Amino acid sequence: MVGFTDDEIRAVYRAIYARRDIRRFRDEPIPEETLERVIDAAHHAPSVGFSQPWDFVVVRDPETKAEIEAIASRAIDAARAAYEQPRRSQFGRLKLEGIEDAPVNVCVTCDPTRGEPHVLGRNSMRRTDVYSTCLAVQNLWLAARAEGIGVGWVSFLYPSEVREVLDIPPHVKPVAYLCVGYPESFPEEPILQTEGWRDRLELDDLVHLEGWEGSRGVDEGDQRA
Amino acid sequence: MVGFTDDEIRAVYRAIYARRDIRRFRDEPIPEETLERVIDAAHHAPSVGFSQPWDFVVVRDPETKAEIEAIASRAIDAARAAYEQPRRSQFGRLKLEGIEDAPVNVCVTCDPTRGEPHVLGRNSMRRTDVYSTCLAVQNLWLAARAEGIGVGWVSFLYPSEVREVLDIPPHVKPVAYLCVGYPESFPEEPILQTEGWRDRLELDDLVHLEGWEGSRGVDEGDQRA
Repeated sequence: MVGFTDDEIRAVYRAIYARRDIRRFRDEPIPEETLERVIDAAHHAPSVGFSQPWDFVVVRDPETKAEIEAIASRAIDAARAAYEQPRRSQFGRLKLEGIEDAPVNVCVTCDPTRGEPHVLGRNSMRRTDVYSTCLAVQNLWLAARAEGIGVGWVSFLYPSEVREVLDIPPHVKPVAYLCVGYPESFPEEPILQTEGWRDRLELDDLVHLEGWEGSRGVDEGDQRA
Repeated sequence: MVGFTDDEIRAVYRAIYARRDIRRFRDEPIPEETLERVIDAAHHAPSVGFSQPWDFVVVRDPETKAEIEAIASRAIDAARAAYEQPRRSQFGRLKLEGIEDAPVNVCVTCDPTRGEPHVLGRNSMRRTDVYSTCLAVQNLWLAARAEGIGVGWVSFLYPSEVREVLDIPPHVKPVAYLCVGYPESFPEEPILQTEGWRDRLELDDLVHLEGWEGSRGVDEGDQRA
């Protein structure tokens, strides 16, 4: 197979670096075929034992969104109560979700029974089913970014309550609740960085050579295989 | 910001669709700067509360790889024992990991204490730290694919034993053990599909409109927002 051209490589990195968590959406529908493309991208993620444990619940109904938003609102209040000042005020100023603003919500779930009784590769690492589902989310997120569509992952939710609102069976785990739509903008930097909440860490501090206590940095040493 | 061109969009989808789980590698080192690019792509994944809970342990030492391979070998034997025939024979014929063949192994971990005491958004969904780590893995995987580099995720491993071999602290969770290198080839289809282990599911069966019991398929109905 022919390799990627330099332009193609740059495009992939562009999607990776320009992807943002979006909470502010324009009032503009997503064409069905575009939504299908980004969900199909998710469906082509790797999965443990090719189990494809994901499902996608697509929500456009304003009443359903309002029910989900009510859950998020309580979860946000609970989180705020746990912060001390000045973090509490700073937290209160953040826009944390765009559930009702986004034209589409997508709940990505994980069905741990998919492919049972023996999912190849899952015996030794049980939660690789959920891990696979997360890989699907990132495919969706990057495909959406390329299409000019923003995605925001709302983790201020109680999964069991989301399950109830969306009639998800008890054994299926809601993993990601995504707000999807055309954004007001794609900010240059993550919002939490711009807002002074937290900075991006130095990559060199996160890379360990040969073992956890090994020297740091990808390019240190002369250890090519 | 200028939108993605059609060529750029196609390149992103190409990486998504042409990505494979690779277990057969060529004996060819990965340039340091290329490895750094794909790990930096991982570092630019979204993370809950911008916590960036990941670390990357880069392994090239053949002795360390051999120790990890020994763990995998036991996990594979244990998995094989659980299959009945004819699955057991079919399983036995599969090449399941390229730990020692790959020039580089990368263990991606999750540190749940990163950003504590209060990681924004994690109160209501505790394992979003691990989810974030998985999103980083998929960034790495897609960037690698664009660069012509193959990645294989080995889940036939016991995480606590991997932790011991790599001197990873007790509170840090090994999430993904990746074999990274130039592949013999990028197969057209997932290996487990080609080998008749399992087929790709129909997307329409995985998409639910408005709720789990809603009609299936992205493009059914007339429900645009």
